Amino acid sequence: MEPAPLAPARNGTPARMKAPRALTCESYALFCDEYELTMAQSFWRHDQNNLAAFELSVRHLPPHRGYLVVAGLEQVLAHLASLRFDSTALEYLAGTGTYERGFIDYLGTLRFTGRVDAIDEGTIAGADTPLLRITSPRIEATVVESAVLAIVNHQTTIATKAARVVDAAQGRPVWDFSLRRVHGPEAGLGVARAAYIGGVDGTATVVAGERLGILTTGTMAHHFVLLFGPRHEQQAYEQFLRDYPERATLLIDTYDTVRAVDLVVAASRATGVAVTGVRLDSGDITELSREVRRRFDAAGMPDVRILASGDLDEYRIRELLGHGAPVDAFGVGTMLGTSFDAPALGGVLKLVAQEQGGTLQPVMKHSTDKITEPGIHQVFRDDRGDVVALDDESLPGTPLLRAVMAQGRALDAPGLDDIRRRTRAQMQLLPTAVRRFDDPEPWPVRRSDKLQALREQMEAHL
Amino acid sequence: MEPAPLAPARNGTPARMKAPRALTCESYALFCDEYELTMAQSFWRHDQNNLAAFELSVRHLPPHRGYLVVAGLEQVLAHLASLRFDSTALEYLAGTGTYERGFIDYLGTLRFTGRVDAIDEGTIAGADTPLLRITSPRIEATVVESAVLAIVNHQTTIATKAARVVDAAQGRPVWDFSLRRVHGPEAGLGVARAAYIGGVDGTATVVAGERLGILTTGTMAHHFVLLFGPRHEQQAYEQFLRDYPERATLLIDTYDTVRAVDLVVAASRATGVAVTGVRLDSGDITELSREVRRRFDAAGMPDVRILASGDLDEYRIRELLGHGAPVDAFGVGTMLGTSFDAPALGGVLKLVAQEQGGTLQPVMKHSTDKITEPGIHQVFRDDRGDVVALDDESLPGTPLLRAVMAQGRALDAPGLDDIRRRTRAQMQLLPTAVRRFDDPEPWPVRRSDKLQALREQMEAHL
Repeated sequence: MEPAPLAPARNGTPARMKAPRALTCESYALFCDEYELTMAQSFWRHDQNNLAAFELSVRHLPPHRGYLVVAGLEQVLAHLASLRFDSTALEYLAGTGTYERGFIDYLGTLRFTGRVDAIDEGTIAGADTPLLRITSPRIEATVVESAVLAIVNHQTTIATKAARVVDAAQGRPVWDFSLRRVHGPEAGLGVARAAYIGGVDGTATVVAGERLGILTTGTMAHHFVLLFGPRHEQQAYEQFLRDYPERATLLIDTYDTVRAVDLVVAASRATGVAVTGVRLDSGDITELSREVRRRFDAAGMPDVRILASGDLDEYRIRELLGHGAPVDAFGVGTMLGTSFDAPALGGVLKLVAQEQGGTLQPVMKHSTDKITEPGIHQVFRDDRGDVVALDDESLPGTPLLRAVMAQGRALDAPGLDDIRRRTRAQMQLLPTAVRRFDDPEPWPVRRSDKLQALREQMEAHL
Repeated sequence: MEPAPLAPARNGTPARMKAPRALTCESYALFCDEYELTMAQSFWRHDQNNLAAFELSVRHLPPHRGYLVVAGLEQVLAHLASLRFDSTALEYLAGTGTYERGFIDYLGTLRFTGRVDAIDEGTIAGADTPLLRITSPRIEATVVESAVLAIVNHQTTIATKAARVVDAAQGRPVWDFSLRRVHGPEAGLGVARAAYIGGVDGTATVVAGERLGILTTGTMAHHFVLLFGPRHEQQAYEQFLRDYPERATLLIDTYDTVRAVDLVVAASRATGVAVTGVRLDSGDITELSREVRRRFDAAGMPDVRILASGDLDEYRIRELLGHGAPVDAFGVGTMLGTSFDAPALGGVLKLVAQEQGGTLQPVMKHSTDKITEPGIHQVFRDDRGDVVALDDESLPGTPLLRAVMAQGRALDAPGLDDIRRRTRAQMQLLPTAVRRFDDPEPWPVRRSDKLQALREQMEAHL
C-alpha cells in the first residue's frame, strides 16, 4: 500500500477561512486517558514515533437508530490545532512520578502536525464506516484519542437525536430547551451546536448565540407569573407584552391554563400588543392545545402560536400531531439534550495502518466481536448505500472522506448553516425504512471485494 | 413567615478554606436560557429585584433508582462566586437588540450577593426534597438557574450511577474509564468528580488528577500491542513491563486472550518484572477470567490481578460475580459516564418564597402534576427517612440543609475524600429495599403536618 500523502488532497482557502472553534476549553491536552500518556512515553523512549493511521468508526448503531448524523469535526480540528501541554499541565505530570524529565520536555514541544481526513459534518452515516482518520506520528494520535472521541460521540449522538425530533415535527419549528438537563453547562454548548446541525431552528442557550451565532429564543418561566400571584396573573402578561412587544411568548400554565387564555386576551387588549405565542408546559397537551386554539380563534386572535414543551421527544411529538393537536412549535429539552433513549455512541478510534519500511502497512486486531478493518479506507456512496473500500480503489459513487487538515492546519471550516442544510438534504433522500423511529433498517454499508480479501488474508496470517 | 437570615447560620473557616473550584469555564454567565435574561431585564425595569428564594428539588426519581447521591454543590458555589458578565458577553447581548443600554450596564456590575443553603454533597436523598436553596435578589437567582441545574443534575446523575456500580462490585476496586464516551470532554471532568463521590476508586481521566487531585490510573490500549504485531506480541508486554515495572496492567485480548497469558508469563520471566495485572476487554469474561486465573496460578503468579472492562454496569458486574468470575477490579466506561439507563435527572429550581412587606412570603404554583411546595424548607432525617418541613419548625432528627454561602461568599468547601466517605457511610445504612437495582423502594420522604397545612391553605386560595 502506498503511504497516504500528507499534502492535502484538495486546496483549502486559508485566506477566507474561519478557524475551527473550540467550545469552552482552549486546550484539551490533559483531557486524555492516562494510558495515552504512559504509552506515549514508551513510544518516545523506544523511538516508535513512526507514522500511524487511526480511523474513527461506530461498531453498532445505537438502539432505535437506523442512521447517524455526523457532527463534531470542527471541534476536533480546533483541539488538534491548539494541542499544547502548558506549564501547569507539565508540572502536574512531572509531579506524578510516572514521567521522566526528557519526556516532559518533549511533551512541552509537542504539536499536532498530522493530517485528518473526514466525512463532512451533517452527513448521514451508518455503522462500521470510517467517519474520520488521523494520520500522524504515532504519539500525536495517541494523546488526542479520548478528547476526539468524546467530541464526536457526543455531538453525533445529539445531532442524530435532533434529526429524529425535527422529523417528527413535520416542518414545525423545534427549539432546543435542554441546557438545564444536560451533562454539565459546557455540554449544553455542544448540544446546541449538534442539535442545530440535526435541524432544530435554534436554542434557548444564550452562549450558543454568542459563540456560534445560533439563533436564540425564549419564552417565560413560571416564577415570572408567580411574582404577581394568582390574583394578578393578567398583570404579568401585560408587563411582558409591554417589555417585549415583538416577541412575547407567554407561559400560561402556572395556575389554570384555560382561564389564562382569557387573561392573555385581556392583557393583549389592554396593552395593544399582539401576542406572538403561548407556551403549554404541562397537562394533556392535545386537549389543552385544542381548547386554547379555540379560545384564541374565538377572541379574534388566530395568529397566536401555540408552543408545547415538557418531556417531549420524537415519539411524543408524533403522538401529539397524530391526535391532531394544534401545536405550532416545540421546545424540546431533556430528551434531546441527553438523547435519553440512546445517550451514548460507541465510537472508537482504531489503528488501521502504520509505517513500516517507508510505507503504511495495514493493521488488524482480532479481539472477540471486536475485529477492526485493516488498511486506509475511503467510503463511496451511491443510491444503494455506502461501500467501505481501500483508499487506492476507485469505485462508482461519491467518495465521502476528504482531507480537512494537513500538517496540523485546518483546510476548511464550513459554516454551521451549510452543515445544517447538508443534513436536511440528506434526510430528504433517506429511505423511509431507515428513517423511521421504531425498528428501523440500518443504513446500508458494504465492504468492497478488495477490502474483504485483505481482511481474509490478514485473518489467515494471525 | 420570618425572612431567612442572610448571615450564615454557622461560621465557616475562611482562613483555611479552599475556594470552590470551577471545572472548566471561569464564568458561566452566558450559560443561561434566554428567558432568564429577558425576565431579568423586565424585573430590572420594573424595580422587582426583591428578595426571592428558589429551591432545587427532583420531582421523580429516575428509572430504577431508589435514591440519589447528591453532588455538584462545589461547582455551583464556584459559579455563583465568579458570576461576571464580561465585556465580550455584554457586547454580544447589546448587539442582539433585545436589551437596553442601562440593563447591559447593570449586568456588567451584577455579582451574586445572596445566600445558599444546601444538603452536603455525598448525602443520600429522595424525590421532592429541597437539595439546595438560593436566597437572593430576584435577578441574581434568575440568571444562574440553568447553569446551577445543569451542574447538579449532571453530577447527581453520575454519582448515583457510580454508587450502584460500586455497590455491585462488592468491595472490589472500580475505575472510571468513561472519558471517550461522555457528553464532550468537559463533561468527563464532572463525571470523574461525581463518580469519585459515588465511590469509584479513581479515574483514567488525567485532568481529574490535575484539577481535583483524584487518583488516576491506566492500562494499555490495543494499538500498543498492534505496533508489535501478532508475531511479536510478547515484545509488547516486555517493553511495557520494563517501562512501568511498578504498575503494568497488560491488555491481553488483542489477538488470542488465552495464548496471551503464556506470553505475559514469558515476558515477566524475561524481564524479571512482576505483572501487576491484566485487562480483559472482550469475549466471555466469566470463562476467560477463570482460564486466565488458572493459567497464572499454574505459572506461580497468583498475585496477577484480573481487571475486566467493556460495557460494564451494575447489572453486568452483578452477573459476573454471581457466576463466580475471578475478577479483581472493574474499569467502567460508557454506562457509568452517561448513566446509560437513566441519563437525565429532572431537577428543577422553583420559586418558593418572595419578599413582600419586609418578610419572605410563601409562593406556590399549581400546574397540572407540577405543584410546588410553598415556603422555605428544612429537611429532618431520622431512622425512618426524611421529613420536609417549614424552616421554622423544629422536628426530631438531623437537619440536612445548612448555610454554605452568605453574601456571595462560600463558607465551606469540603474535600472530595470527605464527601466520598459520607456517601459510603450513608450507603451502608441504606435499607436493602431502597438500595437494590431492580424495582427499588423509594427513599422515604414525608411532609410535615405544618407544611401540609400551608399547602392546603394556599391551594384553597388559588
